[in-house]
Order: sequence, then C-alpha cells, then structure tokens
Amino acid sequence: MARARSEERRAEILRAALEVIAERGYRGASLASVAERVGLTQQGLLHHFPTKEALLIAVLEERDQWDTGGAGLSREAWRLDLLEPLVEYNAMRPGIVQTFSALLGESVSDGHPAKDFFTERYATVRGGMGAALRAEFGNRLPGGLTPEQAAPLLVAVMDGLQYQWLLDPESVDMPGAFRDFLGLLRGAGDGPRG
Amino acid sequence: MARARSEERRAEILRAALEVIAERGYRGASLASVAERVGLTQQGLLHHFPTKEALLIAVLEERDQWDTGGAGLSREAWRLDLLEPLVEYNAMRPGIVQTFSALLGESVSDGHPAKDFFTERYATVRGGMGAALRAEFGNRLPGGLTPEQAAPLLVAVMDGLQYQWLLDPESVDMPGAFRDFLGLLRGAGDGPRG
Repeated sequence: MARARSEERRAEILRAALEVIAERGYRGASLASVAERVGLTQQGLLHHFPTKEALLIAVLEERDQWDTGGAGLSREAWRLDLLEPLVEYNAMRPGIVQTFSALLGESVSDGHPAKDFFTERYATVRGGMGAALRAEFGNRLPGGLTPEQAAPLLVAVMDGLQYQWLLDPESVDMPGAFRDFLGLLRGAGDGPRG
Repeated sequence: MARARSEERRAEILRAALEVIAERGYRGASLASVAERVGLTQQGLLHHFPTKEALLIAVLEERDQWDTGGAGLSREAWRLDLLEPLVEYNAMRPGIVQTFSALLGESVSDGHPAKDFFTERYATVRGGMGAALRAEFGNRLPGGLTPEQAAPLLVAVMDGLQYQWLLDPESVDMPGAFRDFLGLLRGAGDGPRG
C-alpha cells in the first residue's frame, strides 16, 4: 500500500516535470519548480529523486515507454514505419527534445550521472533499429548497407537533426530532412521537397 | 605593440586550453586550470575570456581555422574529400570532440552563451557543405537528393556519430560509419566492412 502510494507519487512527479519542461525548458526545470508543482517540499522531492539529473533521466525513460506504447526499448518495440511519425511528433514537443539533447551533451563528460543511461540506451536502440531494418530489408538495404551498418547512421541522423532544429527551427525542416534520409536508405530518391 | 602582445597571449591561452582539454576533458577544463598552465592569475585570464564558455567557444573557433587550413568556415573551405580524413582525425582527439559535443548540448537551452555561435556555425556549415556537394555532383546526388537536402544530413551524421562514439568508443567505429554514409550519398553501397 505504501509502495503503491510511492509509485503513484513518483508518476505524478514525472508528469509535473514534463509540464515544467514544456513550459520553461531544460534550464528552467529545477527541482524546486517541480516540487512546487506537485505540492512537495524540495526535501520531499529529493526522497524520490536525489538530483536533477536523476529526475530528468527518469523523465526520458518514461517518454521511451510512452513512445513505444509501453514496450520500452526492447528489440520488438521498433518498427521502421513508426520512426517518421515519431520525428514529426518530436517537432511538436521542443521541451522534451531539448531536455534529451542537453542531457546527452552533458553525459559525454567522464563521470556524468547520465553517461551509463545513454551508453546503454544507444546500445539497445542500435540493436533494435538493426532488427527493424533486417525485418524490412533482409541482409542488405537497397542503398547497399547491411542493417548493422545502417542502424548507427539512423540514430545519428535523428540526434544530429534535433540539434540543428533546436538551434534554428525556422531554417531546419527536421521531419522533411529525416524523410530524405529514409529515402536514401530505401534507395529511392524522393526528389526535391516542395 | 600592446595589441600584438595581447593577441600573442590570447593564442597562448587557447593552446593551453587545448592541452588541458586533451588531458582532463571538458569538465576538467576550468578557467583556474588554464590560468595555472599559462602562469596567469584567474583574474588575469578573465581579462581575455570572461567565462569558461567564452574560452571554449574561442577554442572551437580556433580549431575550425586549423581544420580548414586557415580558411575558416567560408564556403570555399569545404571539400567533400576532406571530410573522411577529418572524421578519422577526430577519432584521435576525443578531448576536443567532447568539448564540442558537450557545449553543443548545453547551447540548445534558451539564453545559453554558445547558442548564437552554434546557430551561426550550422547555417554556415550547411551552406558550405551544400556548395561542396554541388561542386562534386551538380544539381542531384546519385542517391537522388539535392545538395541542399543532403547538407543537413551530412552534418547531422557527423554530430550524431560523435555522441555514440564518445559514449562507447569500443562499440562504435565512427570513421567506418561515416564512410558508410558517404557511400550512401554517392549511391554506391560499399558492402559490409571487414
């Protein structure tokens, strides 16, 4: 009972953090602002999440769950035809994309608390993407690459475009550019966009 | 004369910062450690660079100059056949790549001092890459994209692979994956790597 209540409270905190991120961005998502939103003292919040990084990692894990319909980042979760809508969806939620990108940037420093999270996440995501590509194309994509060669490129394009788009949303059509890349993988140039 | 001496001192600080970054990484590159290396007080260093961000931005600008043989990021500076050696070279200097990636991550937050630097840098780099692609392929790449469609993808792949490689250098062959992508753009699958 106490445990159920604690998990309920945890979920409430994550939803509140998501709201604060959407309104104030990564930098504005302080533990104090999230605590205020759920009616906890900062000390009470620290009981659930000892640091801002721990809270934000939990938010990103929760997003992965929702994005994959509850399947998490298991290999079965990835389907190639879901990626295009996912990127389109991301273009409508800059706050969470900013949080992902900022935390990823920080994580490449030695000893950063998010380093293990991202290292494991990328190993899992590359594996899942590879499996999805293999399911669609077999051993060789039309453009000539193996699924295992294409998987890290697919992930890199998604991440790299997010930085360009966050910095300059007027100049960078993130979903359009991602479609261009899928066209390259499929070996069929889509021609110039509108 | 005073100006020449100031510029000389500035160059000396940038070289020292590069050394400290190589030895201690992004987080270890404090203003204090750089000041110590060049025999300045921290106050003396602040005269040249008022913040850590300002110093690191100057280091990244200086690297762009060296990487392009002094041409900076002008449109003329980019040649497609230089990109592959550049990525191979980057794989041997994790410190500066880490600094670039960490600062890029931070910069997507509103009001971050590096936001303008990266926004302008990407606009310039996309333009330069587009011109380089057009010089090599004309209006249409073999894979079907226009130079302007391919340019942001080329930049995204370079940046995205850097994150995956920094997090897990044993699992990610950054130069190999980048060659795979160039093969896609050239419309010629290179086949699986050894």
